[in-house]
Amino acid sequence: MPRTVEDFGEFGLIDRLARILPTSPALVEPIGDDCAVVRIGDRLLLASSDMFVEDVHFRRDRIPADAIGWKAAVAALSDIAAMGGAPVFCLVSIACPGDTRVSFLEEIYRGLSSAMSRFGAVVAGGDTTRSLDRLVIDVAIIGQVLSSRCLRRKGAKVGDLLAVTGFPGSAAAGLHALEHDADEHDPGRALAEIHQRPRPRVREGQWLSNRAAVHAMIDVTDGLAQDAGHIADSSGLGVDIDPESIPVNEGLAAYCADHGLDARHLALTGGEDYELCFAIDPDDQDQMAEAFRHEFHTEVSIVGRFTDAWLGFRIAGQPSDMRGYDHFRTTPDA
Amino acid sequence: MPRTVEDFGEFGLIDRLARILPTSPALVEPIGDDCAVVRIGDRLLLASSDMFVEDVHFRRDRIPADAIGWKAAVAALSDIAAMGGAPVFCLVSIACPGDTRVSFLEEIYRGLSSAMSRFGAVVAGGDTTRSLDRLVIDVAIIGQVLSSRCLRRKGAKVGDLLAVTGFPGSAAAGLHALEHDADEHDPGRALAEIHQRPRPRVREGQWLSNRAAVHAMIDVTDGLAQDAGHIADSSGLGVDIDPESIPVNEGLAAYCADHGLDARHLALTGGEDYELCFAIDPDDQDQMAEAFRHEFHTEVSIVGRFTDAWLGFRIAGQPSDMRGYDHFRTTPDA
Repeated sequence: MPRTVEDFGEFGLIDRLARILPTSPALVEPIGDDCAVVRIGDRLLLASSDMFVEDVHFRRDRIPADAIGWKAAVAALSDIAAMGGAPVFCLVSIACPGDTRVSFLEEIYRGLSSAMSRFGAVVAGGDTTRSLDRLVIDVAIIGQVLSSRCLRRKGAKVGDLLAVTGFPGSAAAGLHALEHDADEHDPGRALAEIHQRPRPRVREGQWLSNRAAVHAMIDVTDGLAQDAGHIADSSGLGVDIDPESIPVNEGLAAYCADHGLDARHLALTGGEDYELCFAIDPDDQDQMAEAFRHEFHTEVSIVGRFTDAWLGFRIAGQPSDMRGYDHFRTTPDA
Repeated sequence: MPRTVEDFGEFGLIDRLARILPTSPALVEPIGDDCAVVRIGDRLLLASSDMFVEDVHFRRDRIPADAIGWKAAVAALSDIAAMGGAPVFCLVSIACPGDTRVSFLEEIYRGLSSAMSRFGAVVAGGDTTRSLDRLVIDVAIIGQVLSSRCLRRKGAKVGDLLAVTGFPGSAAAGLHALEHDADEHDPGRALAEIHQRPRPRVREGQWLSNRAAVHAMIDVTDGLAQDAGHIADSSGLGVDIDPESIPVNEGLAAYCADHGLDARHLALTGGEDYELCFAIDPDDQDQMAEAFRHEFHTEVSIVGRFTDAWLGFRIAGQPSDMRGYDHFRTTPDA
């Protein structure tokens, strides 16, 4: 019988903890989606938090301090984007050893604050306290639902297509570049920049939530396979991902060719892309894609299809044990 | 020139970080009060977060797991209480090593959730992730302002009296009891219970915020001297605390007598009382105190007076270097 959080894994743990918590009429969407949805008066608020631990989620010597802050902000902003919401404000808690340089914390705050400002939110407050050794940052973000609905993980229908924005796998390739080849290789440098300064799809998420044909959405943070699987699981369906349809741009292709990497495997299993992945009615796919590209000058691709023939994700029709990121089961990255 | 967070101290650090952050029309009250005050539509939200690190803020072997959760919840709830608000929901982020027992985390969540439920809030979501060694918990809480105003630290007027609820110093005596004498000594046991399961003054805070004669408020978390000093500083005034007026009940007096402790010194410098401390117009003091005792069956005492003769706090008219809790300068407690 599993007893430790490692035995349960991140999602098993969340499930156990969620059972303890009482429901409440104010809680429109309970634990388990990208954000909680909370009613205050006649408004729906979105709320999410993300914690980052030094030497687990980042290494101080591998990433500039402002990029630590930027990435922490983006993880939070992307959760709001994944529900189609508008970020409003965040709280930032930081614990660090007493001998931490104030200028280092200031750089983290600068990165955090500039990402928040750029995507419409403000750092409203937080906490600063002491840890014994490693830096810990928690960002709690509050957003608003703007359209008449917000997009949840559940809601995909049989026959819906699976779509994804941008070029997932780029952040994982960027991490590889940072660890191996970042200085001399051009595509590697651009990919490393995507890893260190990703962009949350905030406006894109709002736009998609206004489109009735889009039925469910998530942000790609743990790999396309696992995240599309979350939509399928929440919707009581299966999803078949066609790896050949996963878009790969020139830089990603060149870098992967040079380093013996499989770009599509990176897309399926790599983390921290912060692209959006959603279920869309096939009748709207062409119109949506054209309008989306016109509006955002960003790629959007159909990479799979939802089915009731099985539960969870398959790759090219085959069951797969491909695993994305699990905070309690995966080894630390940079 | 100070360079580390230890050199700056908690409040110096907050001041430095706050300078980096842009202002925003949505941000009614910026960093520095118990809560941030944020406008969303025509509503004012209160927001605050508190981070707790194992072996800095608590020791796993000295406190039951559910009390760790309870105390984390109370720290957050008390920040809402100190502004006169109503808690609505919170987000809980937890980082822990992979070999942490799930049952231990469940106990923490039970304590957290039961404190939130009891004082009108709900755990809406959060994050679970891995740390390398110690447990870290961050609780971000969102509340609403109910009355036409919320009580800030600033706003005390010359001649206002300083009032405090309950018996501050009890939590510090309870910590002493836990470390020395908790099992055999009756008053020690009751005080230890106050340390491990404090009560936030949520209803009391709302009641006080409805009273026009109450001009400023804070919760007592770092000792009465320092916290009253925060009201004075924010209001551009000084405050003279009369130590003889600090209320001491029978249990606290008996425990202190038995252990050679000074109850009033504990009240002035001990932390985690979660009582409310406020500035009140002297014309209302008698009426307020009578109505408060009648409503809450809880003591409220006048323990000082605000003045423009100096800045910051004095004890019995004398400058004092008495220090309360500073997260970067004080040694760990239990």
